[in-house]
Amino acid sequence: MATSSDRGLARIEWADGQMPVLRSIRERFAREQPLAGVGVGACLHVTSETAVLVRTLQAGGASVSLCASNPFAIQEDVAVALSAESTVFAGGPDAWADDVASVLTLAPRVTLDDGADLLGALHSARPDLLAGMHGGTEETTTGLLRLRALEAEGALAVPVIAVNEARAERAFNDRFGAGQSVLDGIVRATNLLLAGQTVVVLGYGWTGRGVALRAAGFGASVIVCEVDPLRALEARMEGFAVMPALEAAARGDVFITVTGVPDVLRGEHFYRMKDGAVLANAGQFDVEISLADLRSSASSVREVLPLVERFEFGDRALYLLAGGRVVNLAAAEGHPAAVMDVSFALQALACEALVVGAWAPGVHAVPDAIEREVAALKLAALDVDIDVLTDAQADYLSLTSPPRGR
Amino acid sequence: MATSSDRGLARIEWADGQMPVLRSIRERFAREQPLAGVGVGACLHVTSETAVLVRTLQAGGASVSLCASNPFAIQEDVAVALSAESTVFAGGPDAWADDVASVLTLAPRVTLDDGADLLGALHSARPDLLAGMHGGTEETTTGLLRLRALEAEGALAVPVIAVNEARAERAFNDRFGAGQSVLDGIVRATNLLLAGQTVVVLGYGWTGRGVALRAAGFGASVIVCEVDPLRALEARMEGFAVMPALEAAARGDVFITVTGVPDVLRGEHFYRMKDGAVLANAGQFDVEISLADLRSSASSVREVLPLVERFEFGDRALYLLAGGRVVNLAAAEGHPAAVMDVSFALQALACEALVVGAWAPGVHAVPDAIEREVAALKLAALDVDIDVLTDAQADYLSLTSPPRGR
Amino acid sequence: MATSSDRGLARIEWADGQMPVLRSIRERFAREQPLAGVGVGACLHVTSETAVLVRTLQAGGASVSLCASNPFAIQEDVAVALSAESTVFAGGPDAWADDVASVLTLAPRVTLDDGADLLGALHSARPDLLAGMHGGTEETTTGLLRLRALEAEGALAVPVIAVNEARAERAFNDRFGAGQSVLDGIVRATNLLLAGQTVVVLGYGWTGRGVALRAAGFGASVIVCEVDPLRALEARMEGFAVMPALEAAARGDVFITVTGVPDVLRGEHFYRMKDGAVLANAGQFDVEISLADLRSSASSVREVLPLVERFEFGDRALYLLAGGRVVNLAAAEGHPAAVMDVSFALQALACEALVVGAWAPGVHAVPDAIEREVAALKLAALDVDIDVLTDAQADYLSLTSPPRGR
Amino acid sequence: MATSSDRGLARIEWADGQMPVLRSIRERFAREQPLAGVGVGACLHVTSETAVLVRTLQAGGASVSLCASNPFAIQEDVAVALSAESTVFAGGPDAWADDVASVLTLAPRVTLDDGADLLGALHSARPDLLAGMHGGTEETTTGLLRLRALEAEGALAVPVIAVNEARAERAFNDRFGAGQSVLDGIVRATNLLLAGQTVVVLGYGWTGRGVALRAAGFGASVIVCEVDPLRALEARMEGFAVMPALEAAARGDVFITVTGVPDVLRGEHFYRMKDGAVLANAGQFDVEISLADLRSSASSVREVLPLVERFEFGDRALYLLAGGRVVNLAAAEGHPAAVMDVSFALQALACEALVVGAWAPGVHAVPDAIEREVAALKLAALDVDIDVLTDAQADYLSLTSPPRGR
Repeated sequence: MATSSDRGLARIEWADGQMPVLRSIRERFAREQPLAGVGVGACLHVTSETAVLVRTLQAGGASVSLCASNPFAIQEDVAVALSAESTVFAGGPDAWADDVASVLTLAPRVTLDDGADLLGALHSARPDLLAGMHGGTEETTTGLLRLRALEAEGALAVPVIAVNEARAERAFNDRFGAGQSVLDGIVRATNLLLAGQTVVVLGYGWTGRGVALRAAGFGASVIVCEVDPLRALEARMEGFAVMPALEAAARGDVFITVTGVPDVLRGEHFYRMKDGAVLANAGQFDVEISLADLRSSASSVREVLPLVERFEFGDRALYLLAGGRVVNLAAAEGHPAAVMDVSFALQALACEALVVGAWAPGVHAVPDAIEREVAALKLAALDVDIDVLTDAQADYLSLTSPPRGR
Repeated sequence: MATSSDRGLARIEWADGQMPVLRSIRERFAREQPLAGVGVGACLHVTSETAVLVRTLQAGGASVSLCASNPFAIQEDVAVALSAESTVFAGGPDAWADDVASVLTLAPRVTLDDGADLLGALHSARPDLLAGMHGGTEETTTGLLRLRALEAEGALAVPVIAVNEARAERAFNDRFGAGQSVLDGIVRATNLLLAGQTVVVLGYGWTGRGVALRAAGFGASVIVCEVDPLRALEARMEGFAVMPALEAAARGDVFITVTGVPDVLRGEHFYRMKDGAVLANAGQFDVEISLADLRSSASSVREVLPLVERFEFGDRALYLLAGGRVVNLAAAEGHPAAVMDVSFALQALACEALVVGAWAPGVHAVPDAIEREVAALKLAALDVDIDVLTDAQADYLSLTSPPRGR
Repeated sequence: MATSSDRGLARIEWADGQMPVLRSIRERFAREQPLAGVGVGACLHVTSETAVLVRTLQAGGASVSLCASNPFAIQEDVAVALSAESTVFAGGPDAWADDVASVLTLAPRVTLDDGADLLGALHSARPDLLAGMHGGTEETTTGLLRLRALEAEGALAVPVIAVNEARAERAFNDRFGAGQSVLDGIVRATNLLLAGQTVVVLGYGWTGRGVALRAAGFGASVIVCEVDPLRALEARMEGFAVMPALEAAARGDVFITVTGVPDVLRGEHFYRMKDGAVLANAGQFDVEISLADLRSSASSVREVLPLVERFEFGDRALYLLAGGRVVNLAAAEGHPAAVMDVSFALQALACEALVVGAWAPGVHAVPDAIEREVAALKLAALDVDIDVLTDAQADYLSLTSPPRGR
Repeated sequence: MATSSDRGLARIEWADGQMPVLRSIRERFAREQPLAGVGVGACLHVTSETAVLVRTLQAGGASVSLCASNPFAIQEDVAVALSAESTVFAGGPDAWADDVASVLTLAPRVTLDDGADLLGALHSARPDLLAGMHGGTEETTTGLLRLRALEAEGALAVPVIAVNEARAERAFNDRFGAGQSVLDGIVRATNLLLAGQTVVVLGYGWTGRGVALRAAGFGASVIVCEVDPLRALEARMEGFAVMPALEAAARGDVFITVTGVPDVLRGEHFYRMKDGAVLANAGQFDVEISLADLRSSASSVREVLPLVERFEFGDRALYLLAGGRVVNLAAAEGHPAAVMDVSFALQALACEALVVGAWAPGVHAVPDAIEREVAALKLAALDVDIDVLTDAQADYLSLTSPPRGR
């Protein structure tokens, strides 16, 4: 029978097969050793994809220590397997603060964060280490909010590269990755047939766009709710019905929140919904669907399937998925490895850039050259060739006043 | 802790909530008792959706005995729960032939078949029972082939309604149901990101259309392979690339067979495929991908994830899902309950029609009135109203030579 | 300066370039002369595409005489050019009945009809000619209604092939041809931006499906209205909103009727429409939008652009396109030549089949072999190769009871 | 019979009906008179939509003088009609330079440019007028290149608002407007059936995206060619085939260039194309398809339809549309009025902002508040309501470190 470590290694190997961009970078790193001798501290989900990133950095000469950015997001068998190759602190919820501290004791010169936990702790608890650092990378909007607040106070002491604002990241992670996995989570939890359903998407940011696009791709009729007029207009121009949430409440069969704000669906919406409506959240935190309102008005609550709770209101029932937690992580497997391949390739190259370049303290965008390199590697992995400009065309583009035709 | 029976009842209740058409028929059956005293033998998948059908027939006055059409397609907890309400013979693979015989000993006057097993056995082993029968229904193409062969020999002794040729069945079961669940199965087994992948769909019958449509809905680039020129042309006119399988072999990332014939993908195709290509079958039987050719030419074979086998050929590897068995059943949950709602509503109404009407022996199409009733009930369940012709419009349509405009 | 005949020849040449299927048939006909010495009478639209059909039949040895099926559907320059090669009677509205009679005086042995005008006149006025005929083809639903009425009375004396019921015809002519050209007509007449508009499609037959699909392809939000529950359900499952016309009336920006019945949009609908709504008809006759109701309730009517009339009702105005006539013919160029290529290829092969085969009187479907030949030629024209079954696969398909897998 | 002026007024009225955003701004301008006494010089296409803009500015108190930004883009009847209300200099190609100079003699204090002609002439010929100016707006990429070159030299003396870089402009003008009208132009010129065709889109900027999306919406199979890896990757992830132009050359039926660089299609591409391939340009200038290469290698060239030239090469022929000029202007009617409504609403509000605000010299982005106002007005015109944040939600968004869920 396979041991936990064997199963972890198998998962890592499968993920590796889905991450050709990172593999290609790993091969170059192995030759060039750009991270030779650099200590890297990473606070990320402990998953098979992260393991492939860790191996990539180590191939480039780094010594990596890893703790969990979310103590509930640890694949145990992967943690066991990876421990044989790297320094892993993944003790689970009770050990979380200690695990973060343990990474810091190794005095990393580069940090990879998913919520600014390492950089936050360095600034508050170990400012002595900051001077020796090359810098850090950050993967989340929330983390960037914290780091920019530090920067605004003049307190941010190191350069940080905002990986999650890269254009490639936006497209892959939010639009394609979340678009697929959010609907996957809903289907796995419920086995609903989406064709013929009315799916209401609340929020038309990048993730909302991905969700709306895929829902239409399943044959659903899609309604979009937004507060920003430009986004609302784009949704409408792309063929979706757009209306206020209160009006959509009476029409929807499935509701998906992805706004970043709390209580997007609340009592007044539940009150109008049809019997059998399904509620799912695709936003990062479990605040978008008001559990308080659901509980206070329901006459009974019970689990009818794993991850599906039934809230009864008189002769109607609403079904809440995954307790309102982000449904693609809770009910499916989060982003496909191909999506993390792009994110983590940006991370690896950002890490290299911090080490080999000179950066001022502050939050920096991912350099365009890195975006282009990742895109080019991904195209190569997809066996897609593209054109290059001829010299004459490049010259033409450099003209400030090109001829207006013949 | 929940018992097996409790879990089975919970699954049946959830399915019931997804099957409003059958529920509506059940309510009418309960009032009208059209099947009062009629013995019904059913040989179907033993699932929560089938349980809802059984309850519907029993509400109409029937006494139902059930065995499994596929001894591997038994939800054990549902079988346990349903045993308390009906006669269930679901002993698994070793008991399969006995289970079919057990149903026959109850001398059913109507049969519901999913492969002509009950009707086949009645004709071969219990012809004495045929004279007393109202008739049967059949759910599969394969079953109909067998029954029509009997009919061609003049040996078919009872009327049979070809449920799976109903227009509603074609649309729901094949196009929408299989379209969604086949891709669901592939994503669950692999967590692949389908956007950006080239998906090759072999076979453009109803199921193939559904699969191609949904693959495009996931952002995949779709190639269709067909042998029928009309179907191939339709695929092309609908915007898909169409080419021979040998040419597609070199381009695809994911291959899905759904042709009904054996060895659609074989050595010559495997030989041309890219490293990492994924092979899945959506046809009824596990013959479409040549396992013999895969095994004979691979240098090594091993399972890398549950339901994912890796076949190594020199420096390339191909991944076979679910051993080539139908991927939506093997790796996902088969058709959503909403799909079975339509199929089983047709079954229930066909069963009623056999009992209350006079039918000649032979294979019959589902009467148009039944198709319309099911569609109308489904629309009602979706809260969709439609128009009716005015009297003047109906009169106009009845003219053989209407005025050609003003 | 180009003469009318020159312009006609140029149009015919352009059409010929777009009709590779007919060209391929013409080359075979020229070699094989299947129509040698056969008189063919055709009553069709007099267009460049029809000219290509006439040339094809003549290449096969036929002598063709042509009159106009619709006296308003004559491309004058084409009529002039074609007169030099064939017998053309295209005198326009006042000469229409005489033109039909002129074709009959030539005693055609095969007729090609687009509304049963030639066959109707033969049965009523020249029954003496029927005995010598091979038969006829019919291109319209209306014509088939008339011919089937004759058949029901036992009066239909010749075989007729129902070209417009061919599967290839349905797909091309109605779904792809009309789908594109109806929206083309609306855009040409109005220069409306369809993205962001709500387009209401009344009728979800083949043409309605094409129109709905293309409207969605333009980025419109589409509502479908239907009276048939199965069609309504399909529309809904394909992701469209479905509702009664009265409810849609208040939501639509553009209304397209394609039902085949009169007064689909009438006073009660106009009453609810938004200011600026646009009304177009894609059905064969100009009866679907009630002009009587528009006129009787409008306070003023005037043409604001060619083919656009403004009907004012208090503070709202509705815009009627092309006086309610079929908008793809009136405001655009009808079906693209590539569509007519398929229709006319079916015509040419049906004509050959009538001449070389033995047919009983009555309405007949297009033989499957002809459908397949046309599809195969069209695929060849598109440079698309397809697979063929292996012998083993063909054998498998011929089994009545194939093995159920391994 | 209608006079030219009558026809012009009818066109302006129709456009006005399609431009509700501008109408709404005009109503406010009429009340508030924000441009009272301000001379505005406009160098734009002289069309019915521009006339609606001119009326809007005049309603706000401005006196407007207009010349043509492209001497070939003048709707004569509109010019005649507008002359009765405004100062119009539209003498055509020979008078173009004089017309621009005539506008300058009126010493405009705000300029509206479509290629930087007025601002260019002011800087080079009438620098004396610059000091008195509020500033200008610019509608084209080319114009901005010129103005930014001036700015880089320190020579730009006035503020300029870059209207065509507004997010609303990008979406409407390029994606939705050009997407529809480019394909409309191709269909009008050729009456091609796009379903089943392979359409090659060269360039995947905003316009290329719109063209690719709409081509797929017509049922075409779409190939994208790009030089930028990120754009190429997005095209691929959105489901399009991506390959080098040389490879696409052998596969395409229709080629559409929209890259901004010259000679994108040239001899080596023509050499590989299929017989009958159609070439169209959707880029601003007629340089993207190499006419030189077409002419030098063709054995014969002739016009076969208006706007369609046939270039013969041995046994193949290629068809060039509109001589390689931008096909939506040359063969259709350019952007729909609904598109210009958004562009010109941005222009009108930018003009107001320049007059009422204080701006430094230099090129400025359209203020976000203007974008939001235009979007909100457009939504209102579409009868679309949207949500607003609750106070609690707005507070939550302002937190730098929001609670991470419950």
